[in-house]
Amino acid sequence: MDQRISFLTLAVRDLETSRRFYLDGLGWTADLEVEGDVVMLMAGDKLVLSLWDREHFEAEVGRIAEGDGVPPFTISHNVATEAEVDEILERARTAGADPVTEAVEREWGGYTGYFGDPDGYRWEIATNPGPIGQKVLP
Amino acid sequence: MDQRISFLTLAVRDLETSRRFYLDGLGWTADLEVEGDVVMLMAGDKLVLSLWDREHFEAEVGRIAEGDGVPPFTISHNVATEAEVDEILERARTAGADPVTEAVEREWGGYTGYFGDPDGYRWEIATNPGPIGQKVLP
Repeated sequence: MDQRISFLTLAVRDLETSRRFYLDGLGWTADLEVEGDVVMLMAGDKLVLSLWDREHFEAEVGRIAEGDGVPPFTISHNVATEAEVDEILERARTAGADPVTEAVEREWGGYTGYFGDPDGYRWEIATNPGPIGQKVLP
Repeated sequence: MDQRISFLTLAVRDLETSRRFYLDGLGWTADLEVEGDVVMLMAGDKLVLSLWDREHFEAEVGRIAEGDGVPPFTISHNVATEAEVDEILERARTAGADPVTEAVEREWGGYTGYFGDPDGYRWEIATNPGPIGQKVLP
């Protein structure tokens, strides 16, 4: 198996709310949209972020686990400077992200904070001065 | 905000089990390992898949929602042919993936099946003959 992720698909409760958050709020552009079903956005070279209507997701994948707490994954968006981390967290806050945490210095050398998208999916905005962090920068 | 995902981080219950599944079972190679904490694997150009010890994840991100059902996201690995879909699902089955679904023709033209990793995180192995599907192939 090649070591590749092609799509990350998130089940979303209200596709129009998610669409507005990513497109109008964060300024992303959709690559493919099927009204009431899915919004797909390029998220890297050969990588797509797909926002899929939760009912359609469950019909294919299975019933989603419910419960209080955070989802068991995070999506990181890495940048070169701490100022960019703060700027993006502020943009997310303006776009209605909830929660938004203040970025802090991490013991491994990065500076990161989190925001939740309309479904509470956590994005980490981060610097990572280590070798692997340098590999993901544009 | 640039339209980029840099890391996808999965909270894992037993890092050594996850490590064996991805490295020995699927044949992936780690880029960075911190014993008992994290295993990071390149998963594309400027993209890292990070397997993070669940307790450490919760200490930073928050308590993870518990409940019966599937996680609210899937990771897709796209290939060019239906034969490759079947081969990779079979490899995952041999590696101990559970569940593994038989691939089926989807109404949108793809051929896809799913497997669950040791934490039940669903991978979809897929062909996608549409324009966006072609954008993600190697």
